[in-house]
Amino acid sequence: MDGENSGKKIFPENTVRVKVPGTSANCGPGFDCLGLAVTLYNELELTLWEEKKLTVESVGSGSEEIPADEKNIVWRSAKMILERSGNAQKFKGAKIVTNNRVPMSRGLGSSAAAIVAGLVGANAIVGNPFGKNEILKFATEIEGHPDNVAPAIFGGFTVSVSDKGQVQTFSFLPKIRLKLIVAVPDFPLPTHLARQVLPETVPMKDAIFNIGRSAMLIAALIEGKEKFLTYAFDDALHQPYRTKLVPGMREVFDAAKKAGAAGVALSGAGPCLIAFSPAAKHLENNIASEMVRAFKESNVESEALILDLDTKGATYE
Amino acid sequence: MDGENSGKKIFPENTVRVKVPGTSANCGPGFDCLGLAVTLYNELELTLWEEKKLTVESVGSGSEEIPADEKNIVWRSAKMILERSGNAQKFKGAKIVTNNRVPMSRGLGSSAAAIVAGLVGANAIVGNPFGKNEILKFATEIEGHPDNVAPAIFGGFTVSVSDKGQVQTFSFLPKIRLKLIVAVPDFPLPTHLARQVLPETVPMKDAIFNIGRSAMLIAALIEGKEKFLTYAFDDALHQPYRTKLVPGMREVFDAAKKAGAAGVALSGAGPCLIAFSPAAKHLENNIASEMVRAFKESNVESEALILDLDTKGATYE
Repeated sequence: MDGENSGKKIFPENTVRVKVPGTSANCGPGFDCLGLAVTLYNELELTLWEEKKLTVESVGSGSEEIPADEKNIVWRSAKMILERSGNAQKFKGAKIVTNNRVPMSRGLGSSAAAIVAGLVGANAIVGNPFGKNEILKFATEIEGHPDNVAPAIFGGFTVSVSDKGQVQTFSFLPKIRLKLIVAVPDFPLPTHLARQVLPETVPMKDAIFNIGRSAMLIAALIEGKEKFLTYAFDDALHQPYRTKLVPGMREVFDAAKKAGAAGVALSGAGPCLIAFSPAAKHLENNIASEMVRAFKESNVESEALILDLDTKGATYE
Repeated sequence: MDGENSGKKIFPENTVRVKVPGTSANCGPGFDCLGLAVTLYNELELTLWEEKKLTVESVGSGSEEIPADEKNIVWRSAKMILERSGNAQKFKGAKIVTNNRVPMSRGLGSSAAAIVAGLVGANAIVGNPFGKNEILKFATEIEGHPDNVAPAIFGGFTVSVSDKGQVQTFSFLPKIRLKLIVAVPDFPLPTHLARQVLPETVPMKDAIFNIGRSAMLIAALIEGKEKFLTYAFDDALHQPYRTKLVPGMREVFDAAKKAGAAGVALSGAGPCLIAFSPAAKHLENNIASEMVRAFKESNVESEALILDLDTKGATYE
């Protein structure tokens, strides 16, 4: 999908290898709008077959739960490309081999990664009829909201808005090199449950709280003004309602900040928690161990991942 | 307040001349958070006196309404500086001469300009004991919210958030040179009336609408990506409720967009309407006349101002 990969290319035996980053949506104040891609990847080897036959092989996170039939999300996504590009009669089946490193149902965009992998892979094999913005549109149609699919496609930080049913995404790389420290608890939290606890109306003052911080977050990241990050990651619109779904959330937030994190947030709908720290400060190891320790004090086992910002989004070869 | 003016300086006869830009708050989606300064200035000549005596001379917009007693907002602001810097016994009176070009009660920050003028002027005469961030704090205390005072002090575009009672402002200059076209209707709209019509709670989806657009607006301006401005100026949180207070608002918005404006918004709490157009497009004259025409069709007389972004904020000499 990036410069060197774009355009038409021949894939021997109609096989493509796709690499899609995990993603963290919301970033605190940017509920349903902001997202970022991390250096943790799901890999897909997709082979399109003329015969109507589906084979699925998975290793890695949640591989036992991945359906091997028509419900498979990679196949559903690939089929969307085949149908919309007029190739549904040419390719009726597929072999799908996945190696998933993005943990499932943890708030790191595993579902978005699977969708984007299927779309990008099938699109490449049939000659890239669709550009990134069309892939974004298709992925949002399947996923329901753009906040994880956008960074999975574009990489970096993304701002997405819906405009008359169309999604528009702005992606950028911040001037500050950030380390992203993610504490992954040992329990899943399905997104639909994390959405159920949110109210339909919110206080105007909470909306203003998030508007100012989202704007300041974007400004501070693009302009590289570290001191303003301190005010920029707080949220009043979704995290307060979700605290009860993630035992230890407040304590892990406090521990990360005490260890020097510039900010900390629920990753997507959770339960992962993500801390942000400028790489130049070299605080990431300490922040990581403090987050795991604070989770443990709330009787939650977790592991910490120290990641960078992915700058490319989905790629294939 | 800018580089060349900072530090101590002697003011003969304790007289300073201050120039403060008008401002436009909200900029569409950034309700109570975003603001910008325009190249339309109020001028103040402030003389601090040892004797307890107040003289006020005003020319320009609303001069007949400016009180010449202790209620005078310039004097109240100057007094705050004198009290907090330990100079209240030294200076007990003032001569205030103002030339106001920013129209009063129109949503262009005339009240913020008066406050900032008084603060900056008195601060200069007593040797600049307070920096811009302290001036911001004092001005916000008097005005009640930072969205107009911040750009009046810093210039450019500003993002302000309140954090535990403290205001933090990030100011920046966009990469795109914008023309700001302001239609000034012939009736005032006191801010407190425009606040009364707003609800205390709002739909979550409207909050999300504004969060994404504020973030995209900032990103598009800083990175200079014109095409994203098209999606960035819309608002769901305050303008819909205020439409009834400004006859012709929707029609003027439509006319400005039809004439090529990248975006259009209520300026502050109104009734001024502001359109944004990249200078390179040379559409400002046409947009201005279309806005005045659309107001007239709704039986509202107005005049149009074609302005640039002020980049310095309050200055003195």
